[in-house]
Amino acid sequence: MAQADDARCLAAAAALAERARPLASPNPGVGAIILADGVVIGRGWTQEGGRPHAEAMALQQAGEAARGAALYVTLEPCAHRSPRGPACADLVAEAGLARVIIGMRDPDPRTAGSGLDLLEQAGLIVTEAGLSSEELGLSGHMAQLQLGRPHVTLKLAMSLDGCIAMAGGESQWITGEAARAHAHRERARADAILIGGETLRADNPRLDVRLPGLALRSPRRMVLTRSDAPDGWTAINSPAGIATLDDVRYLFIEGGSGAAAAFLAHDLVDRLLIYRAPMLIGGGRASIGDIGLGDLASAHDRWRLDDTRQLAQDRLEIFNRRR
Amino acid sequence: MAQADDARCLAAAAALAERARPLASPNPGVGAIILADGVVIGRGWTQEGGRPHAEAMALQQAGEAARGAALYVTLEPCAHRSPRGPACADLVAEAGLARVIIGMRDPDPRTAGSGLDLLEQAGLIVTEAGLSSEELGLSGHMAQLQLGRPHVTLKLAMSLDGCIAMAGGESQWITGEAARAHAHRERARADAILIGGETLRADNPRLDVRLPGLALRSPRRMVLTRSDAPDGWTAINSPAGIATLDDVRYLFIEGGSGAAAAFLAHDLVDRLLIYRAPMLIGGGRASIGDIGLGDLASAHDRWRLDDTRQLAQDRLEIFNRRR
Repeated sequence: MAQADDARCLAAAAALAERARPLASPNPGVGAIILADGVVIGRGWTQEGGRPHAEAMALQQAGEAARGAALYVTLEPCAHRSPRGPACADLVAEAGLARVIIGMRDPDPRTAGSGLDLLEQAGLIVTEAGLSSEELGLSGHMAQLQLGRPHVTLKLAMSLDGCIAMAGGESQWITGEAARAHAHRERARADAILIGGETLRADNPRLDVRLPGLALRSPRRMVLTRSDAPDGWTAINSPAGIATLDDVRYLFIEGGSGAAAAFLAHDLVDRLLIYRAPMLIGGGRASIGDIGLGDLASAHDRWRLDDTRQLAQDRLEIFNRRR
Repeated sequence: MAQADDARCLAAAAALAERARPLASPNPGVGAIILADGVVIGRGWTQEGGRPHAEAMALQQAGEAARGAALYVTLEPCAHRSPRGPACADLVAEAGLARVIIGMRDPDPRTAGSGLDLLEQAGLIVTEAGLSSEELGLSGHMAQLQLGRPHVTLKLAMSLDGCIAMAGGESQWITGEAARAHAHRERARADAILIGGETLRADNPRLDVRLPGLALRSPRRMVLTRSDAPDGWTAINSPAGIATLDDVRYLFIEGGSGAAAAFLAHDLVDRLLIYRAPMLIGGGRASIGDIGLGDLASAHDRWRLDDTRQLAQDRLEIFNRRR
């Protein structure tokens, strides 16, 4: 099969992986598709709590038809045999597949290439697509393994002139319903949401996911503060404190400008979600406080626009930190 | 010919009209195309100083071939006979054209439908496309006739968080070369450029057009100030003062935040050019000062995104005021 088709099948597997987010925690959300003669005969994604894995689910669907077929999986099949279940590389090898195409290697030291070795020793043809963790929906997994902290998204909802509120504080509403619904969906994709202490005291926001069918996905609530957190909230007293959150893959920062600035000043933001309403406020509250920028030159080349879409009258832009 | 083709030919005429801007002053910049059997046999645009008109130029090119052909012209041919030249409606009628398709009627009281009457009386088939002045490059002409003032563009070059400079004032450079060259081209399309008194004192900018071949297009320089203007500058002491500028069709406001706010507070901005660099400044200088906004609700539904383009790493968005 041509490389273009491989890319399409991996993209389909990545779309399945999205279903696992964030429910698969503490395991990474992985997606898998099994193809025989151009027909999808099995689909899987990491199940709630992390098991079964995507490969196991897809193989179970495919059954005997898996013999000679091709498996597309976003992440290298695991090689570690655990009390919770068999290693996926073993399962895949036993199923008699002809080919395995993976999105990327798993840097988890328990696998880290040994999943591929196991498959090749079993006689399978293994292809690595070498896609990015963003493309594969694995950025949270990679952040924890490579940076020792969650993947951090900062959300900003602003006017064209970069204000998140009028000078007096009025902020309801700058963006419209479609943009706010999109932001709720983004909340549902996070393990935890964080706001600044000042925002908590001023607004005491619920930060739940108010979308039909997704209410149970409301993430853990965190506040950046040196004081104690109120009931139902977890406090961290510095942005660097997120390194202790090893059960959080995706952290979503909702503001305000002080919390946003604190994380940016520590270079602890990986992704920006900017919702912009086609309005001017003029002399309103800035979206981001002082981030300790030394000069303009050092502000360049840090952000890459990776996606943009119209949400009714508003515009969403998604930037990722260049690293 | 189908309506879609009419629209394409008018768009081509509008592209020719762009050559007339701003050199055609005090006349509107008009474009014209003559089509015979699907072949362009004449093209014209208003010449420097306003004469010859676009129709006269296109008719001269077409010569005898104009008999039975179709004329596409962005604005209704003028009906006023002046010492500077014949009325275009007379010229068009005498040329033996079969059809005339106009972009819009000319509200100039010396024409205002009488150009069309003259053509119909001469037996031509006349079609009005009813396009907008923005589509036809006639917004300056319309602003002067309908609002009694120039068409006003406000340019903003900012970071993603809406800052036009760091807190200390450093602003070179936020946007890159491609965006700055585009802004110079926009200067060349204006009759006059305006900045605030504070910006003049702080930066004393040249505001010339630093593009090869366009240096002579550098527009008149104006400053919003209650003091006297220095040599080479014209002072206006309030945004409402632009009503006296009846020889200016297109006014280009370059900043700073005070001048921008003053014009916005008077609802005297028709078009926003926002150049955004993919950087965050954090705690920098806001792009727009206080515009006297009463509540968020009244800030909605004022701006329509009409065009957007990538300029190397930067993004340009063009908004027009909904009226």
